Amino acid sequence: MTGTRERVAVVGLGLIGGSLSRRLAASHDVIGYDTDSSTRDLARTAGLTVVDDLPAAVHEASIVFVAVALPALSTVVGQVALSLPEDAVVTDVGSVKSPLYAAVRAQGLGTRFVGGHPMAGVERSGFSASDPDLYDGAAWVLCLEADTVLASWLQVAGVLTGMGVRVVPSTAAEHDAAVARVSHLPHLLAAALAATAADAGPLALTLAAGSFRDGTRVASTAPALPTSMCRSNPEAVDAALGEAMARLQAAQADPGSLIAAGHQARVAWENRQAVPSYLPAGDAMLRDRLLELGRRGGWIARIGSDVLSVAAPEPV
Amino acid sequence: MTGTRERVAVVGLGLIGGSLSRRLAASHDVIGYDTDSSTRDLARTAGLTVVDDLPAAVHEASIVFVAVALPALSTVVGQVALSLPEDAVVTDVGSVKSPLYAAVRAQGLGTRFVGGHPMAGVERSGFSASDPDLYDGAAWVLCLEADTVLASWLQVAGVLTGMGVRVVPSTAAEHDAAVARVSHLPHLLAAALAATAADAGPLALTLAAGSFRDGTRVASTAPALPTSMCRSNPEAVDAALGEAMARLQAAQADPGSLIAAGHQARVAWENRQAVPSYLPAGDAMLRDRLLELGRRGGWIARIGSDVLSVAAPEPV
Repeated sequence: MTGTRERVAVVGLGLIGGSLSRRLAASHDVIGYDTDSSTRDLARTAGLTVVDDLPAAVHEASIVFVAVALPALSTVVGQVALSLPEDAVVTDVGSVKSPLYAAVRAQGLGTRFVGGHPMAGVERSGFSASDPDLYDGAAWVLCLEADTVLASWLQVAGVLTGMGVRVVPSTAAEHDAAVARVSHLPHLLAAALAATAADAGPLALTLAAGSFRDGTRVASTAPALPTSMCRSNPEAVDAALGEAMARLQAAQADPGSLIAAGHQARVAWENRQAVPSYLPAGDAMLRDRLLELGRRGGWIARIGSDVLSVAAPEPV
Repeated sequence: MTGTRERVAVVGLGLIGGSLSRRLAASHDVIGYDTDSSTRDLARTAGLTVVDDLPAAVHEASIVFVAVALPALSTVVGQVALSLPEDAVVTDVGSVKSPLYAAVRAQGLGTRFVGGHPMAGVERSGFSASDPDLYDGAAWVLCLEADTVLASWLQVAGVLTGMGVRVVPSTAAEHDAAVARVSHLPHLLAAALAATAADAGPLALTLAAGSFRDGTRVASTAPALPTSMCRSNPEAVDAALGEAMARLQAAQADPGSLIAAGHQARVAWENRQAVPSYLPAGDAMLRDRLLELGRRGGWIARIGSDVLSVAAPEPV
């Protein structure tokens, strides 16, 4: 049935799972599934192989991507595990990782699971918004926890690097702290800006131009997703908000210092370099080296049989 | 010398004045001036008529646009007044209006001056970044104060609507309160986001994607401009920051309400309508009607001899 192509299953065919399925179909035997029959029909019309129940999707897969909404993730990972081949691995695309790991471990699935998070998205949602090029060059976190099976981790990482993704090794806790600042905080600041401007009345909204448009763009996102991200990551979001508010409070007395610091940070980010390097695949310390790479802002670009091609903003 | 075309002068040929000169040159006899000789050379190379001193630029103009940096505005308006023909009017493009009006009035120039502010810009600056299409469809505030000569105001408004700008009537105080929320606050939030993310370290910056990119875009702007905007508008910026911080503080306990309010505000802004209407040019209450139009978020699209074509988000 599959020829020589590796079989992967994608459970959930919205924006994230749909884009992933369409991209992976070029290189893999992809079986898709979604609980919604009209989504399944849309995906079939787009040329994907889609089955009508979850066990049929996963029972011959070597990797199962679970791409459902954050609140449903742990339940669906548990359902997947019931039909999962013994040597297969489950991964996901959820935007907060620690609570999911706790739920997955409570089901005894810690060693079967590799948590993932693609850093890509658009304001729209659903299969109709999917795009096989969504992940080109994007960062994709793969969690490397104490109970992660390194071979499983490398198997998932290999599929992702094969589609041109930068795989970033991280722990769930470090991931959650980082995304609170670069993903969840932007949603809250955009909402605060939009709501504050709207309260100022129609003149202000007529004068709103580029800085308002860009600063509020992510507020176009349907509220359920950013709300569940923030609610699932309360400590890190609280810390990020506290830090941002302290900076804003200081700006009431001295706007120039904040503006200068923000400018420096943004320009440094724009001008980051990618310094290539490599890690020997057989390194006994590979797990530690991968986590250190991620902490330095680095990523895996390609996984060969002997060597992992990596890159980082500074020489590693 | 000018044939039948109205002569306008543009003092300051950076991004704003350069774009204005290039656009107006299609319909007006434009004379440009800049204190920087290399900027004058650049503008001449682009085909503009540029003179080497300020009096030569303004002494035959009917309208003088002063497009210099905010801290220099009141000084340059005073210099322009020394060579200004008796029936000519001075306008400007500064992003904060009340302190400028105070300085202009202190020089006895209140009735010669109509404060303006185009709601357009990009992160780059200088004549080399100028673009004759920068203002297409943009809102451009023109201040209508108690001492404003209505005929002068309409003269400037006519030039601007002729270039496809939406002219928004406002008082300096109402303008300053509005832009604190839709222009100055976005700069401060973008800076807070960029600085908070940078402090989180290299992993966070590698995971920064679309929401961070858009949320920090205006932090690319050279800091001098947003800093002077915020410092010139301290009360309104303080109020806008206070309101945004109160919303963020509430989000620490309940992120969902802020995200929902921000989403509603952004979507309403995206979907605003332009309902066309008109005002009789000879209306004895025209000044009040114009200010009321601006308060309702409306603008002037065209000025005819009998009628002003206007539009607003709701029927006026």
